[in-house]
Amino acid sequence: MDLRPAPALITSGWLNSPTPLDIPDFRGRVLVIEAFQMLCPGCVEHGLPQIQRVARTFPADQLAVIGLHTVFEHHAAQGTREALAAFAHEYRLGFPIGIDRQDGALPATMTAYGMQGTPTLIVVDRNGFRRFQRFGHIDDLALGSILGTLLAEPAAASAMADPAGGCDATGCAVPPAA
Amino acid sequence: MDLRPAPALITSGWLNSPTPLDIPDFRGRVLVIEAFQMLCPGCVEHGLPQIQRVARTFPADQLAVIGLHTVFEHHAAQGTREALAAFAHEYRLGFPIGIDRQDGALPATMTAYGMQGTPTLIVVDRNGFRRFQRFGHIDDLALGSILGTLLAEPAAASAMADPAGGCDATGCAVPPAA
Amino acid sequence: MDLRPAPALITSGWLNSPTPLDIPDFRGRVLVIEAFQMLCPGCVEHGLPQIQRVARTFPADQLAVIGLHTVFEHHAAQGTREALAAFAHEYRLGFPIGIDRQDGALPATMTAYGMQGTPTLIVVDRNGFRRFQRFGHIDDLALGSILGTLLAEPAAASAMADPAGGCDATGCAVPPAA
Amino acid sequence: MDLRPAPALITSGWLNSPTPLDIPDFRGRVLVIEAFQMLCPGCVEHGLPQIQRVARTFPADQLAVIGLHTVFEHHAAQGTREALAAFAHEYRLGFPIGIDRQDGALPATMTAYGMQGTPTLIVVDRNGFRRFQRFGHIDDLALGSILGTLLAEPAAASAMADPAGGCDATGCAVPPAA
Repeated sequence: MDLRPAPALITSGWLNSPTPLDIPDFRGRVLVIEAFQMLCPGCVEHGLPQIQRVARTFPADQLAVIGLHTVFEHHAAQGTREALAAFAHEYRLGFPIGIDRQDGALPATMTAYGMQGTPTLIVVDRNGFRRFQRFGHIDDLALGSILGTLLAEPAAASAMADPAGGCDATGCAVPPAA
Repeated sequence: MDLRPAPALITSGWLNSPTPLDIPDFRGRVLVIEAFQMLCPGCVEHGLPQIQRVARTFPADQLAVIGLHTVFEHHAAQGTREALAAFAHEYRLGFPIGIDRQDGALPATMTAYGMQGTPTLIVVDRNGFRRFQRFGHIDDLALGSILGTLLAEPAAASAMADPAGGCDATGCAVPPAA
Repeated sequence: MDLRPAPALITSGWLNSPTPLDIPDFRGRVLVIEAFQMLCPGCVEHGLPQIQRVARTFPADQLAVIGLHTVFEHHAAQGTREALAAFAHEYRLGFPIGIDRQDGALPATMTAYGMQGTPTLIVVDRNGFRRFQRFGHIDDLALGSILGTLLAEPAAASAMADPAGGCDATGCAVPPAA
Repeated sequence: MDLRPAPALITSGWLNSPTPLDIPDFRGRVLVIEAFQMLCPGCVEHGLPQIQRVARTFPADQLAVIGLHTVFEHHAAQGTREALAAFAHEYRLGFPIGIDRQDGALPATMTAYGMQGTPTLIVVDRNGFRRFQRFGHIDDLALGSILGTLLAEPAAASAMADPAGGCDATGCAVPPAA
């Protein structure tokens, strides 16, 4: 666990949100990000059902859930907003879903977070710091424990004095790579 | 159970098969057809895993499994061969998959079989007669029983004397709607 | 598959049946026997739920389900009728359950059938012949297929002319070891 | 959540522990207690597998798991130490299991905790205070969150100055009913 703020979300569009979202929008809440691809079986069978359970289990004013569509293969089949919208509609995904921006070999946010593939689950604390990232499966007990620990932490105002970096009582934060 | 031969498969292409396939190609074997859409959650979670289990459980020289992609919604997202190929690749679908021909409000084979939606599971006996059709789920015990019953039936040569219709010892068959 | 009648059920008592039962009592129906122990995890988690599904799936006038309590270990804990009755009550086992007779190193019916342990699933055809026996798990599709095959067979009156042995049109049956 | 210490464990014996155990033995660790009966299907199918997952997921020096056999029915079938030992052996229960003392209409610890039935899951914090109790099922995400929250709390020495009651910085504790 480092003390660096979570990198910014670099997106080309959003579903289920009237405006683009980024890490600071969730300040004060624990944020769970599920990076997925719509044609990734592990995402469909495990990752997405799990964050739907997370969204049902925890109060929305304490914890937020978002998806991030990080397409790095089969672009023709799953790379359009229409395909993603159809998928989100059929699978009843009601949370905001960002479309990771395609501007390199890998999508931009995927690169900024150093993700190894999909599904990747990321947890950001109330103060905007990335506290957990896992490629592949994590079971519900372990994930619940991580979320419970972070929910028990206060949202220290000082820690967010300068979300772009800087020092406070807990330490000094490196600004996000931006 | 009527004595009518199963309607012909009207397709615009096939995956996992070098040539187009139709009911008579499976003569002598029990044929299980899974009609699905790649963005249909019930197909992905239940129907397709079930016929993969069927394909593993029964000997290939006695029972054949095929898919039929009957797209009737979200055509932009799932209506291309590329999208289906990516899906089949990611979900490790190794059986032949026909693409139901789009030439009306509903795909042509879907209409010919009177399907109500996806997933629909169809079982054709060794002699080319449709013996079972179910929209939605069927559990493994019940499906296994149906397949066991049909596998126990001999492939009476006479019954197939005229696969396009005609009479034999078991009765008179109406020719397929063609 | 031999043509020998299923060995007799040698029991010291029955639950859920006013009278003792034996193979000939099920003549005309396919009979599924689940040999189990109440403290056998594989029986509780797989075998017993599976035959409860079997009992729900098939019509009772065509197929019967019974249990056989074949205690070969932990006799003090699970060897009494009271323990079995409490277990059957809590697990809602409504089918007849025979108590395999304890008169040797192994229970008598367990020995007669050559069972290797619990759970063991046995299927007897409409004519009283043992057609399938499996120690351990069998999945629903495969079991359903076996049952479907046997349900499709007629109960030939002649084959049961002499259930204790003898010859008929299908062949000559060795009398049960009795 | 009150500030009362968890009631004492009133037992007539233990499995998987050379000595009797009680709440103060777990001081400094979060303690998860699963109250169960060996013939309770909900315990066998959900409660016990869940605390086995808990035991595997969390480090033993931070969190302890114990069972409590609270027999309140079918005493003849499940009320002996032999029956429980056979059950624990077959289900591979490796954690300490206390046998709730039979000295009233209900077992003594069951009464002291006001349990409504089995399974009941109880969580005691590092300082010996009961923080959670649930009759029936709780899903893994929610349980994980509770455990994560309690694991994040320090074991304040002062809070345990007088585990039998008394006041400290957090408040005043009613002595356990003893």
